[in-house]
Amino acid sequence: MVKDKQYLYIPGPTPVPPAVVTAMTKPVIGHRSSDFSDLYRGVVAKLKALYQTENDLFVLTNSGTGAMEMALANTINPGDKVLSLITGFFAERFARIAAACGAEVERLEFSWEGPIDLEQVEAKLREGDYKAVLVTHNETSTGIVNDIAGLGKLVAKTDALLLVDAVSSLGGIEIKTDEYQLDMVVTSSQKALMLPPGLAAISVSPKAWERVEKCENPRVYFSLADYRKTGTKGHTPWTPAVTLLYGLDAALDLIHEEGLPQVFARHERLGRAVRAGMRSLGLKLVAPEECASPTVTSVWAPDGIDPDQLRKIMREEMGVSMAGGKGSLAGRIFRFGHMGYVGEFDVITGLAAVEMALARLGYPVQLGAGVAAAQKVFLADKE
Amino acid sequence: MVKDKQYLYIPGPTPVPPAVVTAMTKPVIGHRSSDFSDLYRGVVAKLKALYQTENDLFVLTNSGTGAMEMALANTINPGDKVLSLITGFFAERFARIAAACGAEVERLEFSWEGPIDLEQVEAKLREGDYKAVLVTHNETSTGIVNDIAGLGKLVAKTDALLLVDAVSSLGGIEIKTDEYQLDMVVTSSQKALMLPPGLAAISVSPKAWERVEKCENPRVYFSLADYRKTGTKGHTPWTPAVTLLYGLDAALDLIHEEGLPQVFARHERLGRAVRAGMRSLGLKLVAPEECASPTVTSVWAPDGIDPDQLRKIMREEMGVSMAGGKGSLAGRIFRFGHMGYVGEFDVITGLAAVEMALARLGYPVQLGAGVAAAQKVFLADKE
Repeated sequence: MVKDKQYLYIPGPTPVPPAVVTAMTKPVIGHRSSDFSDLYRGVVAKLKALYQTENDLFVLTNSGTGAMEMALANTINPGDKVLSLITGFFAERFARIAAACGAEVERLEFSWEGPIDLEQVEAKLREGDYKAVLVTHNETSTGIVNDIAGLGKLVAKTDALLLVDAVSSLGGIEIKTDEYQLDMVVTSSQKALMLPPGLAAISVSPKAWERVEKCENPRVYFSLADYRKTGTKGHTPWTPAVTLLYGLDAALDLIHEEGLPQVFARHERLGRAVRAGMRSLGLKLVAPEECASPTVTSVWAPDGIDPDQLRKIMREEMGVSMAGGKGSLAGRIFRFGHMGYVGEFDVITGLAAVEMALARLGYPVQLGAGVAAAQKVFLADKE
Repeated sequence: MVKDKQYLYIPGPTPVPPAVVTAMTKPVIGHRSSDFSDLYRGVVAKLKALYQTENDLFVLTNSGTGAMEMALANTINPGDKVLSLITGFFAERFARIAAACGAEVERLEFSWEGPIDLEQVEAKLREGDYKAVLVTHNETSTGIVNDIAGLGKLVAKTDALLLVDAVSSLGGIEIKTDEYQLDMVVTSSQKALMLPPGLAAISVSPKAWERVEKCENPRVYFSLADYRKTGTKGHTPWTPAVTLLYGLDAALDLIHEEGLPQVFARHERLGRAVRAGMRSLGLKLVAPEECASPTVTSVWAPDGIDPDQLRKIMREEMGVSMAGGKGSLAGRIFRFGHMGYVGEFDVITGLAAVEMALARLGYPVQLGAGVAAAQKVFLADKE
């Protein structure tokens, strides 16, 4: 095995395109210069186009978790009631951050094997005077997508803000921020945006700004007011990760050159191919087909197979990295990420690796069957 | 002018060495992998050697301002008294963050044209029951270094923690974290560490940990407890900026290959040469010689010269970027950064640019005089 030939199929960080790597080698510039303003304003404009929003949007030098904290810390006062839609590991994290911000968190629990149920949410919203509803658009830990368009309609009728964790969806799954009435949408760089980790982003609706102005949760690094003030000059309040911004600029150019409909269709097709491949190997998927993620697929380990052993074989013998289960799914599933800089042959390689690792573990697998199922999906779409 | 030939003399971000740029182009790896643990543990060990500390140390994905907030948010409870040593723009920021964390901030004001006065600090410490003392080691806005060794002795005798902003000093000025009894030292990547912006670091003494355990200021992204928990596995709690960590690893290798005494002596010599050059041009310096910074030099604009006009000429006609004044020094000084990946001929180029820009503005300058003064410093040191 060529040690340098590594295949990254974890659901973030994801592979970085050569054009993005190259862009990040440009010399650093001062972040109070007009060159920086041009760069930052360009990135924000291209990212707003991807968010499909006219809302304010800021690029942050921190991970997605920091962006989630920013959303909550700027809108929640201690004691505020927050409705947290619990669908997996990252929804739990969102709820934890809300609690740390002093919110009274009401947990609406759903199965980790399905999406949110809008009727239950609607009933809850009628009951309580919530200041915010927290949802994970694409639950990375399960590979299940939630209906944020439907949720947006419900929450917009109330005083609550809808805060959306779109870390593993934005750029891979269409999000019409304004049409769906999403008050704050956070994402990060190392998923479908095809960048190394280190940047995040947040959009802020007018309804959210009203709340920000009344919020007393003291923050400096995550102060939206500071971002708004410097944003008008094309600057950030604190020193930004300039080279990652070069990379984000290049990555957004790639996305817009391909075209948003094409990017979303590609992810949808890749997800469909992975699922077809897994099923043809006799493997069962965590997500029901109607809410299966276009960016990451969770697969139950078959009886007698330890998914972490399967992953170890792929990693050590083939240079292929997939993710394990998190929380209650640890040791029971493996996860195949297919977001960002991923094409049809990446999916085929990943499926071939799964087949070979299953065979190495003595599982009865028909070599090539998963690959063939994916090929059929790709060929049918080319007709 | 070759548009691509740009000279960065702002006090951060600073030029990035080619070996560091190259290191950052390596493929991204998953941050829960053992390869990542090896990388992170190596970086932490090399950074501890530079900090000269056995304390815990963490690398953070955010700017230095975020690291300052982390230091305060994890040690200060609302209502705690904090003594803030105000020496310039960045000391003001440290005080602002303390206030945002709910501290009762007592400001001990010093001139922006000199260092802290330890006798005044000692008197203050006798008066009040402070939980923390905040100091800016090297005030980037003035180019003045404070005596943190002396301060450490005073604060160690009290219950207060000594929190040190070493953003523009660490890696350019020696800091003996343990010997000086510094409880928390924060720095960031884009200064003497020769990296692009996006990373920061923090060290935590046992005395500081005791306080962290009693602290109720709720934070998630900046939670030291989470960093401690994952640090034992060589991980970070939240997704880290992996490519910048590759760069930091390479930069620390460069620093340790040169040798710490050599690195500090180089910065000291560069500062001395810049000051000699400026004086020989008849310019006056903000810092008294005995506390002048080895990493950044602030220069008063001579009568009749607008420093921002001087900088504009350097930038637009020569591709040379220097910084202006901040706060009360805006429009009165310019600042020449000489930290990190900087050698003797960089200083000579910077001085030559200042001479030429002064001449362009009609200021009576003897061309080459500043350069010659710097050359003499360099030659004398080679004897």
